[in-house]
Amino acid sequence: MKKIKQKVPVSFSYDVIFTEGLFDTNNELFAELIASASPEVARKVLFVLDEGMYEHHPQLFENIKEYARHFNDTFTLIEEPIVIPGGEAAKNDQSHVDEVHRAINEAGLDRHSYVAIIGGGAVIDTAGYAAATAHRGIRAIRIPTTVLAQNDAAVGVKNGINAFGKKNFLGTFLPPFAVINDSRFLSTLDQRDWRSGVSEAIKVALLKDAEFFSFIEENGEALDQRDGEAMDELIYRCAEFHLDHIANSGDPFEMGSSRPLDFGHWSAHKLEQLTDYELRHGEAVAIGICLDVTYSYLDGLITQNEWQRILETFKSCGFKLWVPELQKNAEHPESEDSIFSGLEEFREHLGGQLTIMLLDAIGKGKEVHEVNYELYREAIEKLKSYEQQLETQRA
Amino acid sequence: MKKIKQKVPVSFSYDVIFTEGLFDTNNELFAELIASASPEVARKVLFVLDEGMYEHHPQLFENIKEYARHFNDTFTLIEEPIVIPGGEAAKNDQSHVDEVHRAINEAGLDRHSYVAIIGGGAVIDTAGYAAATAHRGIRAIRIPTTVLAQNDAAVGVKNGINAFGKKNFLGTFLPPFAVINDSRFLSTLDQRDWRSGVSEAIKVALLKDAEFFSFIEENGEALDQRDGEAMDELIYRCAEFHLDHIANSGDPFEMGSSRPLDFGHWSAHKLEQLTDYELRHGEAVAIGICLDVTYSYLDGLITQNEWQRILETFKSCGFKLWVPELQKNAEHPESEDSIFSGLEEFREHLGGQLTIMLLDAIGKGKEVHEVNYELYREAIEKLKSYEQQLETQRA
Repeated sequence: MKKIKQKVPVSFSYDVIFTEGLFDTNNELFAELIASASPEVARKVLFVLDEGMYEHHPQLFENIKEYARHFNDTFTLIEEPIVIPGGEAAKNDQSHVDEVHRAINEAGLDRHSYVAIIGGGAVIDTAGYAAATAHRGIRAIRIPTTVLAQNDAAVGVKNGINAFGKKNFLGTFLPPFAVINDSRFLSTLDQRDWRSGVSEAIKVALLKDAEFFSFIEENGEALDQRDGEAMDELIYRCAEFHLDHIANSGDPFEMGSSRPLDFGHWSAHKLEQLTDYELRHGEAVAIGICLDVTYSYLDGLITQNEWQRILETFKSCGFKLWVPELQKNAEHPESEDSIFSGLEEFREHLGGQLTIMLLDAIGKGKEVHEVNYELYREAIEKLKSYEQQLETQRA
Repeated sequence: MKKIKQKVPVSFSYDVIFTEGLFDTNNELFAELIASASPEVARKVLFVLDEGMYEHHPQLFENIKEYARHFNDTFTLIEEPIVIPGGEAAKNDQSHVDEVHRAINEAGLDRHSYVAIIGGGAVIDTAGYAAATAHRGIRAIRIPTTVLAQNDAAVGVKNGINAFGKKNFLGTFLPPFAVINDSRFLSTLDQRDWRSGVSEAIKVALLKDAEFFSFIEENGEALDQRDGEAMDELIYRCAEFHLDHIANSGDPFEMGSSRPLDFGHWSAHKLEQLTDYELRHGEAVAIGICLDVTYSYLDGLITQNEWQRILETFKSCGFKLWVPELQKNAEHPESEDSIFSGLEEFREHLGGQLTIMLLDAIGKGKEVHEVNYELYREAIEKLKSYEQQLETQRA
């Protein structure tokens, strides 16, 4: 037996840029980004637009055309954008990936060309997966337009769509070419999309930084009332924590047993599915975190005061903390419509042993590998009654 | 404008192992490989078999089952293997990828489980693409069974299938978990598949190492007469050169302008397509290299003696050096059935500027960014007449 030990070090790098008015012709950022990195022959850019976002910004592609004319010596715009529907449900439909592949083929894009994706997390995931698999990876410029995408979904190294009823069953790890957060897109978000991303920021704060949690706690109502400055700060800091976690985990493509920042997500993924995607991802994450925080409290890991502060912060940001789907078939964990079946789906997706993140203190997570169903059922009850109490206080 | 500069270093490593009789129960290699790397819960292995290979080894899966029973404390065999057709043409059919995805889903594989792929390069590319995109990458163990796959296709970091009539339009860069070359599979190859892989070894020798070329030159007839020892040596050294090129290129995922070892490949890919995959990949590569070697000679880069030695080496290994498709519409490079349209397809797939590898000497390549169609047409004629001359000598 002979053996050759192969090592393949790969170094990815990308900028996450915060700007306003990306396609104003006096904003040179986008044109410079492209001019700096590609040979002239390849400076083609295909745009993929989120249908919902595009309805709120009907002039957007006209602006992009004007921008492209203004900078026509630095890049070539593919004249027809691809428009695909947003929202998690759209990730169940493989045909959107096929559509982006077809457009990449027809436009003759190559690995030094660009797919610029403007939209929410689902559209960025879907079109990002298509770009990652065409010619083994066309450069993706992600331009997220929701709070959730700007501070979480779009800054990382993953893409994907759902298949066989499983979240992100198809996808790859591939860093983007660049991420550009344009705060102007946030102003047209409906209240639910504005709010949704805040839960991921609370998640990061709970796991990583008590001071960041205090910032959100203090600004909960301001955020709910669409204070732009508070939101800019929240997005920047949340994105920064995420990027730091990816860069310094030692295992950014999760090949070993390292864990992504997925607190509250085992039940959140399942709740999205059980509510037929009526709950948006960030809304489901809020409930998922409140459940695991309540479980952590009942398990003696955090104090009553910590538990209350966290739930009240979610509430002040405008989140629901509980839905009836949490209790459906809770006595039958193996049943497909029981919230607890999400545990095995979660384990399968990450691979290896089950690992659930709980809370040891505000700012500090704790991993466990087993759960107590009885205690979880108690946590679901406790969460329900505490939410009712908070509702009564606010009424 | 604010900016976060993100760096994501990822370190992949895998072993390329040479063995004989992989699924003999006294060969612990496979079981140890799995036991060493996964938590117990995840030691599931799904096999994907190349239909053509399986016809030559009808007992193979029974052997694997016995092997799995023998090592049942180290891994769990998924009882139904997936069997998919081999050969480049099968890479045009997306349904084989879907089939592997379905099987991965049904078997509940996770990112710490394994897809073991036994077959030629096309099956390894196809099933490897499916594994790379399920759960963002299930571990692939490649067990190549042809010379071409053992010394070239299966040792590297790519996978993919064809789409829109373009070679490897869909695919990813993702290193395998391990590669295992079992020399026993080579004995049942038909003569064309035995021979096919030799052209990639000649390619590597021409670009990298004059001494390795001399080895092949001296062993051409022995190889054609199925000398196992010469073939083992050829495969090992060729795989070693490939692995070294990938590890030390500084850009293994070809994100910049670094080039894979693709000498002769712009026309080879096109010839496979123009002959409706009648030509196997290695056969097309032999012709493609002979064409670019002849062009290099006419362009004054190599001597007549070098040119003749190279063509004679290919001939002694049993290769055809010329096919009529080289001349079809040679006057109309832009025509889709002209060999020269392969230049633009090649440029598009690699991205950026056109780069063609020519030969500066035996053992030394030279990149050029422009070609002279007239000189190429002359090279096609020259190659045709020299092959006729060699045929006459051998008759």
